[in-house]
Amino acid sequence: MNIPPTSKKRIVIIGGGFGGLSLAKSLRNSDFQVVLIDKNNYHAFQPLFYQVATAGLEPGSIAYPFRKIFANYQNFYFRMAEVISIDATKKTVCSSIGEVNYDYLVLATGATSNFFGLKNVEEKSMPMKSVSEALDIRSLLIQNFEKAILSKDIKEREALMSVVIVGGGPTGVELAGAIAELRKDILPKDYPDLDIRGMDVHLVEANNRLLTGMSAQSGHRAYDALNEMGVDIWLDTRVSDYDGTTVTCHNGKTLFGSMLIWAAGVKGVVPGGIEASHIKGGRILVNEFNEIQGLQDVYAIGDVALMITEIAPTGHPMVAQPAMQQGVNVAKNLKRKLSNQAPIAFVYKDLGSMATIGRNKAVTELPRFKMFGWFAWMAWLFVHVYQLVGFRNKIIVLISWAQNYFRHARDLRLIIRPFKRGG
Amino acid sequence: MNIPPTSKKRIVIIGGGFGGLSLAKSLRNSDFQVVLIDKNNYHAFQPLFYQVATAGLEPGSIAYPFRKIFANYQNFYFRMAEVISIDATKKTVCSSIGEVNYDYLVLATGATSNFFGLKNVEEKSMPMKSVSEALDIRSLLIQNFEKAILSKDIKEREALMSVVIVGGGPTGVELAGAIAELRKDILPKDYPDLDIRGMDVHLVEANNRLLTGMSAQSGHRAYDALNEMGVDIWLDTRVSDYDGTTVTCHNGKTLFGSMLIWAAGVKGVVPGGIEASHIKGGRILVNEFNEIQGLQDVYAIGDVALMITEIAPTGHPMVAQPAMQQGVNVAKNLKRKLSNQAPIAFVYKDLGSMATIGRNKAVTELPRFKMFGWFAWMAWLFVHVYQLVGFRNKIIVLISWAQNYFRHARDLRLIIRPFKRGG
Repeated sequence: MNIPPTSKKRIVIIGGGFGGLSLAKSLRNSDFQVVLIDKNNYHAFQPLFYQVATAGLEPGSIAYPFRKIFANYQNFYFRMAEVISIDATKKTVCSSIGEVNYDYLVLATGATSNFFGLKNVEEKSMPMKSVSEALDIRSLLIQNFEKAILSKDIKEREALMSVVIVGGGPTGVELAGAIAELRKDILPKDYPDLDIRGMDVHLVEANNRLLTGMSAQSGHRAYDALNEMGVDIWLDTRVSDYDGTTVTCHNGKTLFGSMLIWAAGVKGVVPGGIEASHIKGGRILVNEFNEIQGLQDVYAIGDVALMITEIAPTGHPMVAQPAMQQGVNVAKNLKRKLSNQAPIAFVYKDLGSMATIGRNKAVTELPRFKMFGWFAWMAWLFVHVYQLVGFRNKIIVLISWAQNYFRHARDLRLIIRPFKRGG
Repeated sequence: MNIPPTSKKRIVIIGGGFGGLSLAKSLRNSDFQVVLIDKNNYHAFQPLFYQVATAGLEPGSIAYPFRKIFANYQNFYFRMAEVISIDATKKTVCSSIGEVNYDYLVLATGATSNFFGLKNVEEKSMPMKSVSEALDIRSLLIQNFEKAILSKDIKEREALMSVVIVGGGPTGVELAGAIAELRKDILPKDYPDLDIRGMDVHLVEANNRLLTGMSAQSGHRAYDALNEMGVDIWLDTRVSDYDGTTVTCHNGKTLFGSMLIWAAGVKGVVPGGIEASHIKGGRILVNEFNEIQGLQDVYAIGDVALMITEIAPTGHPMVAQPAMQQGVNVAKNLKRKLSNQAPIAFVYKDLGSMATIGRNKAVTELPRFKMFGWFAWMAWLFVHVYQLVGFRNKIIVLISWAQNYFRHARDLRLIIRPFKRGG
């Protein structure tokens, strides 16, 4: 990897998502050499992928180059590479661009889509775990409409127009709301020859309510709001098969849609070299210091880490906050280690959670109170703009949102790279 | 193509670039049915491709969806398709989505890269005639730098960092200037481990000066400005071969660069069904009414059309202005035809030409006077923002430019889709 040798201890961080980035930033001016490895050359702001997928934001507005973030850091090295495996005995990471030794290793590899063994769904559905997958959804949505106007078969035409979203968490709820808004404001103007009533937006959820990570009240409010926007919500329903047009559910129900967006499940991205005994439910078991037990000097944080505690018996939610807080804590403990101080156990501070549903509508739960509607929506906007990396991105997202809001515009309905299955 | 039958005469326009778009807009509220066919679902603003390629602008800022442009047009149909051939006898267009009949056909298919038979160059160089090709250049530029930091071989490393641009027209000049600015402001900060002096920016031109479409004075000014920015300019030099690293020139000179950008030549995109006798130098011969002689009711405008007149003995320049003006004129003549009026011959009104070189530097030639430097640069900025389609695009481009200017920033150095040769 051509990293200069150093007398300092070397920390290798795999993954520059919320966890890895927060860790790297917390290690600024510390007495370590830090190597960050990521398969992309940019940090991507996942909570807004759904807006890229629905033509509301450009990909460049929610991505920020790592090298710019770390331009003024000392003893800091970024390498763009895919990590293949780790060897905790030899203390090396094996990657697509060669090996690197470490003194301390932190896995912040995040999560990927979990299809729960449904092969056909995996092959034919659209996941949304990367910027380019979000762009693929944007392309396919428009490509399907361009196909629909050519079709003289009403069943085919309506399937091409319809979208089935699986998973009633924040991603599924936000996507369903944004696509329902496209159906209301944009698509009838773009395709006046198509009868927009033939376009269904389905949201399928295995549980008996939406937003199971939030309170029942928020889940019900999201349900009512989406329902009012014309989203067909199917609770207590699990998808069992998909042939590219027909979605088959476990209870025999069938839904039609040439686009199936999979937001139903995630699992940790576990590099090779981690024994199965350390993995549970696709995540790597860690102790209260984010250490992988049995391995020396190997940590895991964020989505890929499963820290089971009394207050989090099934682990922390796989969202940005625990990842960022664990990044800060691991940085602190690594610095304490240098000065032979005992590590501090991680304690998750729940700052709340939120999901937007549409214009003026969001659910926001703060530790002390819940909000719904316009105030919740404003809170959502503020928090998301605030957290975006980069001044340019903040400004451009604000302007894009203002234009989307006041002019009901989604001007990014562009097929820059047509989506091709398997391409 | 599923276009509704009509009692009106049907005009089919192939291509929604500057010419096709200007024609379509001029036909608004006319008594025709208009069908616009383009392989993309957006109009792309070609003069700013070079800024997409150099991380200054997002692709979405210079592209605008056709369906939004034509949302309120009556009797107007857009179809996204590749045109395969035309049959002027049967009056049909054959495309990737089927056939369509026409009463009048206008070819506004534009131009594509002309490699003049240099197979290796065609295979291994980067053209920049579409948004996605511009994005490929952006990706490869960064990918090569990410590779360069891994290389321990100085020759390989310097080749990976270096760029050879072929063609000293506006595109080549603008690219060379923008890449020289990346070398000055951005890349040394992003890659402090690399010795930036190893990065060469070469500009190769077959003629004895730059900007042959403009005055000698402008060409010399561009030369001096680029020279001062450290661009190595090779006049009177033709590229004869390229192996992916070494550029061989006709005079034996060799240049090294893992990226060869081809901006040296264009040729018209001629659909099948046009006889060779109608084609000259890759363009379709038309009379002063933009009619293809010998074919009935078939027109060609813009880059693909070659109209030889006394004042333009080699045809009009292959830039936006003639295309737009011909679009307006053909629209006028088609309307006159409906009322049995004689057509009006096309007369090109040269509004001037311009090329930007870098910060505060451009050459602008208006019919009455020439400008160079800051005023020319401001004129360039103003004209380009003014001509962009869409309010959002104008605003976002202005903000991006302000940030690029005041903060020396190019925050879009993202590899969203890695470039793969042949992929």
